[in-house]
Amino acid sequence: LAEGRSDALTRDVGRLHESELGDLLEALDPEERTRLVDLLGDAFDFSALTEVDEGIRLEIVESLPNDKIAIALSELDSDDAVYILEDLEEDDQNDILAKLPFTERIRLRRSLDYPEDTAGRRMQTEFVAVPPFWTVGQTIDYLRDDEELPESFSQVFVIDPTFKLLGAVDLDRVLRTHRATKIEDIMRDTSHPIPAQMDQEEAAQIFEQYDLLSAAVTDENGRLVGILTIDDVVDVINEEADEDIRRLGGVGDEELSDTVRRTSRSRVPWLTINLATAILAATVINLFDATIQKVVALAVLMPIVAGMGGNAGSQTMTVTVRALATRDLGINNAARIIRREVLVGLVNGAVFGVLIGVVAGLWFESPQIGYIIAIAMVVNMLAAALAGIFIPLLLDRVGADPAVASTVFVTTVTDVVGFFAFLGIASIWLG
Amino acid sequence: LAEGRSDALTRDVGRLHESELGDLLEALDPEERTRLVDLLGDAFDFSALTEVDEGIRLEIVESLPNDKIAIALSELDSDDAVYILEDLEEDDQNDILAKLPFTERIRLRRSLDYPEDTAGRRMQTEFVAVPPFWTVGQTIDYLRDDEELPESFSQVFVIDPTFKLLGAVDLDRVLRTHRATKIEDIMRDTSHPIPAQMDQEEAAQIFEQYDLLSAAVTDENGRLVGILTIDDVVDVINEEADEDIRRLGGVGDEELSDTVRRTSRSRVPWLTINLATAILAATVINLFDATIQKVVALAVLMPIVAGMGGNAGSQTMTVTVRALATRDLGINNAARIIRREVLVGLVNGAVFGVLIGVVAGLWFESPQIGYIIAIAMVVNMLAAALAGIFIPLLLDRVGADPAVASTVFVTTVTDVVGFFAFLGIASIWLG
Repeated sequence: LAEGRSDALTRDVGRLHESELGDLLEALDPEERTRLVDLLGDAFDFSALTEVDEGIRLEIVESLPNDKIAIALSELDSDDAVYILEDLEEDDQNDILAKLPFTERIRLRRSLDYPEDTAGRRMQTEFVAVPPFWTVGQTIDYLRDDEELPESFSQVFVIDPTFKLLGAVDLDRVLRTHRATKIEDIMRDTSHPIPAQMDQEEAAQIFEQYDLLSAAVTDENGRLVGILTIDDVVDVINEEADEDIRRLGGVGDEELSDTVRRTSRSRVPWLTINLATAILAATVINLFDATIQKVVALAVLMPIVAGMGGNAGSQTMTVTVRALATRDLGINNAARIIRREVLVGLVNGAVFGVLIGVVAGLWFESPQIGYIIAIAMVVNMLAAALAGIFIPLLLDRVGADPAVASTVFVTTVTDVVGFFAFLGIASIWLG
Repeated sequence: LAEGRSDALTRDVGRLHESELGDLLEALDPEERTRLVDLLGDAFDFSALTEVDEGIRLEIVESLPNDKIAIALSELDSDDAVYILEDLEEDDQNDILAKLPFTERIRLRRSLDYPEDTAGRRMQTEFVAVPPFWTVGQTIDYLRDDEELPESFSQVFVIDPTFKLLGAVDLDRVLRTHRATKIEDIMRDTSHPIPAQMDQEEAAQIFEQYDLLSAAVTDENGRLVGILTIDDVVDVINEEADEDIRRLGGVGDEELSDTVRRTSRSRVPWLTINLATAILAATVINLFDATIQKVVALAVLMPIVAGMGGNAGSQTMTVTVRALATRDLGINNAARIIRREVLVGLVNGAVFGVLIGVVAGLWFESPQIGYIIAIAMVVNMLAAALAGIFIPLLLDRVGADPAVASTVFVTTVTDVVGFFAFLGIASIWLG
């Protein structure tokens, strides 16, 4: 396909939706990618760049001259333009901004001045705003005649001469009201304006809580500076859930398009921490080497105690991390959840303690070993429950993300406690 | 507060948003909950029930007489009403439906007839539709005068006399067009109508891919039966991400409000499977009991090999499961990702093999032990990479959810291979 026939190509690709073009770009080799963008020339839809991995986006943007980028960006919605600009180096950013028309430049600059991951960075700076004393008729006529309006919008904001936000009117309200009615009589309070400095995750929570479709973004003086729409929020929600899953799984910010070298390096820190904690657990085992030499069955059984604790701990931890992420766990119910998890740990510890006790006792024809492993199992399941709930809570309290570090701490606790309890009881009883 | 002063209570609670009322309900004890709903009487906003855990919702709904529920449901949007109805027993469902007005009943029945987790079950059956030959002016007049319209809407659908979907017009388009223009001249193709039978997760993917805010839901004959809006989709996305995280963590459908007994029981299956695989791994260790008795250091070090493999495996698995969930992994790039993961496994295996080899060799003053653990580490990291990618892929291929069972299979592989490689090489070399 990509053999130079740029006219046919332009026609075929032009039919694609931006996200389909994005998928196409991701499927191609790096050389094919730049070739495709080259051949498409002006027909290349830059919004497709918001749909690809960061690595690929940078690769494509850096292969293009800055003035081409400037022209393309001026045709995008401001939030898409910011999305592409924010990853570039500062020199390139400034160069591209300088080539843009004045209002465009001011708008993008303002978004970029807000810190990453805030509502201000994500917002769209194109919106429709009218004064409160206009009538519905005046508003409709303005919407019909003004050429400068954003491509699509679902509400009209009401502002005073200083751009202070007074309220908003949904389009269906405008359509259902007679022309003579004043806007201020049908406007509703924008009860949940989002401060531009607010973290995007918090903004997403507000959207979810109040089932918003779009919300006004205001600066510290209550002036309207942009709008945040739900499709941006969906992206935030996805990113956050993704981040939680990756962090629980010990994977960093890697992307599917990363190279072997990059992937391998990004996974090393987590494996290093795990190696350190595994060595810690090994030194616990080493304390009891004499007992193990006497009763090798202990070496055979000890991973069962540690492993079951690890699994029970990660169950409790998963529930706790999710409940913290969705703000379902707070001061009101923390005591109840802690009590519940401790009781569940004891109950399941007893159930599986008895089960493994019988199995181990029969296997090694030693009731003593059965008793020992049963007691160790109860102890470790209790430790797992405590670690599974308190470690994420503590991490959350000190401002860390519970998803990122809980797994390693919890399994360290269950390994160390599991080996220590099992081998310790055995060394007293059998030693 | 809940001491009988129903007037003050009604005033205070009436000010709350439905989701805040939902949070309040979740924070209360069961008795307080029914008391609150009782005291509020008709002022109780049923849409708050869509914001609470299933257990609490059932508890409240079951405490109310069916005709009260029927009255309340008729005031809700159809998707909220279905959400509350679908969990009830069939007798109650039928009884409540029978008490509803005819059109209402038909609508809810139709939604309930679609299987759970489909677009048809989630859709809202209230929408605005006009014929193509109307003018913009006629449409606006209709919107102004008709009392039966849904509470809010963001587009007008265009249908033929048999309800077949022809297109849609966004409200901003209506507002920006002169009154004499015909609707058919400004309508756009609804390029992505959602079949009512489509799985909600698939529907959510379409919303995300094309950044939709709402979409038409059509039956098998292409007739418009409802609309799906992005706030429903946000709920679906959240549920699915939540499900993945829980399944990877070995937690089922439990809720934060569940009792000890219920929680404990819901976690037993997962722990039982893990016990079985842990016993399997223990039998592998048992094969080499003579070697362990001779060299106790092996018992001290073996959990390190198994544990590092488990962690590397869960990194690869996390990436694979997420890529499958987001449809980023397909036939196009599977070969590349498999190659990458295998290489990453070998590289990280070599890095950590050398590292632990040196540590173990020095610790037990035996270069042989160092070599043995280094080789075992490379073998197990390779096994981890293969298991981490092929197990989710296979589960996905046979139609199972990779998130639900991957963890247990992957750790079984890394435990068994880890113990077998380490102790096997040691028994040949040292035995």
